[in-house]
Amino acid sequence: MPFTPPITLIRGGTDSLSAQIVAQLRSSILLGEMRSGESVPSSRALAHRLGVSRGSVVTAYEQLNGEGYLVSTQGAPTRVAVLLHGETLAAPARPMVEAGQQYPLDVLDLTPGYPSTRRLSGRAWTAAWRLAAARPIPQTEPPLQGTLALRTEIADHLRHARGVRCEAEDIVVTAGTSEALALVVLALREHLESGAGKDSARAPVVAVETPGYPAATRALQRLGAILVPISVEADGLPMSALHALTVPPQAVLVTPSHQYPLGGRLSVDARLRLLDWARRTDAWIIEDDYDSEFRHVGPPLPALASLDNDGRVVLVGSFSKILTPWLRLGYLVMPARAAVRRAVLAVRHDLPGPVSGVVQDAAAELLASGAVRRHIAATRRDYAHRRSLVLDALSGRPSTTLSALDGGLHAVLGLQNPARSTAAISELAARGIRVADLRDYSAGPGAADAPAGLVFGYAAVSDTALVRALDHIRAVTAVDAVPG
Amino acid sequence: MPFTPPITLIRGGTDSLSAQIVAQLRSSILLGEMRSGESVPSSRALAHRLGVSRGSVVTAYEQLNGEGYLVSTQGAPTRVAVLLHGETLAAPARPMVEAGQQYPLDVLDLTPGYPSTRRLSGRAWTAAWRLAAARPIPQTEPPLQGTLALRTEIADHLRHARGVRCEAEDIVVTAGTSEALALVVLALREHLESGAGKDSARAPVVAVETPGYPAATRALQRLGAILVPISVEADGLPMSALHALTVPPQAVLVTPSHQYPLGGRLSVDARLRLLDWARRTDAWIIEDDYDSEFRHVGPPLPALASLDNDGRVVLVGSFSKILTPWLRLGYLVMPARAAVRRAVLAVRHDLPGPVSGVVQDAAAELLASGAVRRHIAATRRDYAHRRSLVLDALSGRPSTTLSALDGGLHAVLGLQNPARSTAAISELAARGIRVADLRDYSAGPGAADAPAGLVFGYAAVSDTALVRALDHIRAVTAVDAVPG
Repeated sequence: MPFTPPITLIRGGTDSLSAQIVAQLRSSILLGEMRSGESVPSSRALAHRLGVSRGSVVTAYEQLNGEGYLVSTQGAPTRVAVLLHGETLAAPARPMVEAGQQYPLDVLDLTPGYPSTRRLSGRAWTAAWRLAAARPIPQTEPPLQGTLALRTEIADHLRHARGVRCEAEDIVVTAGTSEALALVVLALREHLESGAGKDSARAPVVAVETPGYPAATRALQRLGAILVPISVEADGLPMSALHALTVPPQAVLVTPSHQYPLGGRLSVDARLRLLDWARRTDAWIIEDDYDSEFRHVGPPLPALASLDNDGRVVLVGSFSKILTPWLRLGYLVMPARAAVRRAVLAVRHDLPGPVSGVVQDAAAELLASGAVRRHIAATRRDYAHRRSLVLDALSGRPSTTLSALDGGLHAVLGLQNPARSTAAISELAARGIRVADLRDYSAGPGAADAPAGLVFGYAAVSDTALVRALDHIRAVTAVDAVPG
Repeated sequence: MPFTPPITLIRGGTDSLSAQIVAQLRSSILLGEMRSGESVPSSRALAHRLGVSRGSVVTAYEQLNGEGYLVSTQGAPTRVAVLLHGETLAAPARPMVEAGQQYPLDVLDLTPGYPSTRRLSGRAWTAAWRLAAARPIPQTEPPLQGTLALRTEIADHLRHARGVRCEAEDIVVTAGTSEALALVVLALREHLESGAGKDSARAPVVAVETPGYPAATRALQRLGAILVPISVEADGLPMSALHALTVPPQAVLVTPSHQYPLGGRLSVDARLRLLDWARRTDAWIIEDDYDSEFRHVGPPLPALASLDNDGRVVLVGSFSKILTPWLRLGYLVMPARAAVRRAVLAVRHDLPGPVSGVVQDAAAELLASGAVRRHIAATRRDYAHRRSLVLDALSGRPSTTLSALDGGLHAVLGLQNPARSTAAISELAARGIRVADLRDYSAGPGAADAPAGLVFGYAAVSDTALVRALDHIRAVTAVDAVPG
């Protein structure tokens, strides 16, 4: 009889026998005790050994089959699936000379922000590029706002996925979120200098969340914005702090649906108050809706942009999380206000859109064919499962808080003791596991008191790699694990 | 006997009989007197009619065949080739709702700056994209400076085409020239603020040529540069004007090989003096080498970057002219000076490279396969021929000067009388022919006295369309054509 690890069943407990079998076989597979490609016992044999009905084992096998851990072929024994990438725990990470030249999957890189492309249909991907390359080769640059075909598809996606009422004419194609933010800062400066705004200060003042998205703050500062960091609370950006500012900023960058990185969510009431504040102070709101496609708990709240009746929310988003950052593709949605649109397009005229027409054509095709929608649906299920692995491994432990798991692709493991956090991150690096330091997400005068902990992504790695990494994270963050 | 227009031969003149036959048949085809697909007389019949040896006609037909005007098929009469695109003079230009959605070829758009993609092998193009799309889909962004494969190919191209000693590590991939210039301005600001430069002024001062490249000045200004326009002379940027500046700029943007748009060329001596000036004033030189691959008269002079022993020339270039602006792909070459490199890479870190990894992989493949090299060679011959059509039609006419034709893709028809220039451009627009106004290339206090005339591209249109457009340009710029 093929090898199976010992299975311990508790009769009369809260979990059914088949659920217990599923849980124990799954973790054996993830831990490598049952190896890829090996056959598992027949349902009859295992049922006999465990003293349970054959139906319980069949049910368990069917579930594991559905989850992709087992493979059944007609007339052949059921086997452990050959899991792609990262089944083995890598030796200490190879130096990544160039990001993108190799897969983070191979090095147990849990740096947050990277998606899984495993579920993206290779056939749809290659077909989209083939179609885009088959067009007669245009001799001009792509249109200022992006191709009509892509903008139509993006607007369609946003209406369906986020309930944002927008049309192709509202969309500006960008090379991702940083490029979109650069465009918005320059547009804000254009707006202020053109006298349509309240003053003609050259450097726009932008309020940002802290902890926040370091890449966003770097892009804003690089374009000359002066940042006002506002410490977020459990629900995200606190309105009281915005109100308390003596000089209101000319814009605020906010992640209302899943505060980055802590995961807070602005209530509808807070959203309406934020819109009201912006109207009264004549500020722009930059809404970064970076991962709303992956909501794991409850429905997503409406985007700020969909509540905005005053035309002052610029929504930015990208395909980095729903497809891959390799594409360098994103968008912004211009609000109705003519002054905002004029400013954005004036900047675009001077700094032409950087996205290749071939990329735009291929992306439009991927969206139109339904490949993106199907990829998001499949990936959402994968991420939901990995999220449950994170919760299983790390929730409810002393002196730690686990957060940001209601949606998205990353988790935050807060640690009360900053020294312990630093030691844990170093120890993980020594073990070849890369995570981010929560304190690197904080800026401003309060940064010294910023919350400490680990930020890690669970999307770009395989289940197996994740489970092993979680084992290490668990070990190095145990209260007595490291000095601190 | 098939129709041929009257052919007048001058015996004993400087041109051979066959050369005279070639010239007259070619212009009949271009003018549409002989129509696409129609058969031409047999060499025997035409020789008889003209009273020349049959050999003269055979030689003429062979040349026209080689130039693509005639097509010979074994056993069938020789015919006029079916010329692609734009044979017919369009009615007044259709509004281009979105540039790039249709071909300028169809509207007799002679706006300068657009290349021909006709000679680019469709097979090589689609194969390159197929290869780029066939890779496993990476989950990360492309490397900071661009993929190693593309940077290696770009460095190779620059060494061979421009004699610039550079390696992959010197290259930064950009989304074209505007994006490269934006990167350089931000890097210059970073450099000045970091205190490595001579002061910490926030807005860098950049000297630019006038007339100059409007897209470049727009990009520089949008990023906050203060521009100092310097009027160019016949040879390009005059050193005396640079020396005369009381406060030297922190950078100078220069097109030394083919001043844009007037076509002047800095001598090697002037180049060395410019480098010396930059060394003494601690300025950066931004060399825009936008069309050196298409030198029609004499060999190109060495790039400034190849003469630079002091590490202060940033060379920018793009694939917009050698392939297509649809790609949105360019590069900059960092000089050896560590402070410049540090500043460029610091900006790139904050504003990640906008070029899709798929575009980079496809472009690397196009370069590696030799498709780009072959395309440049074939296109250079096409452009040289079109250039001769421009010279034939417009040189040596009273009160006009024809320039910029030593290289590149465009010509400048200077008109002494600015009012006549304005009237000519309007009249051309009414006839459905788009050209640019030379005065739109001038900036600064001297712009009112800037030279007047027409700037037009001859690359993106077919020979036939070009000849017809030249007829119209000739007509509307004749001394007695329009009031002014």
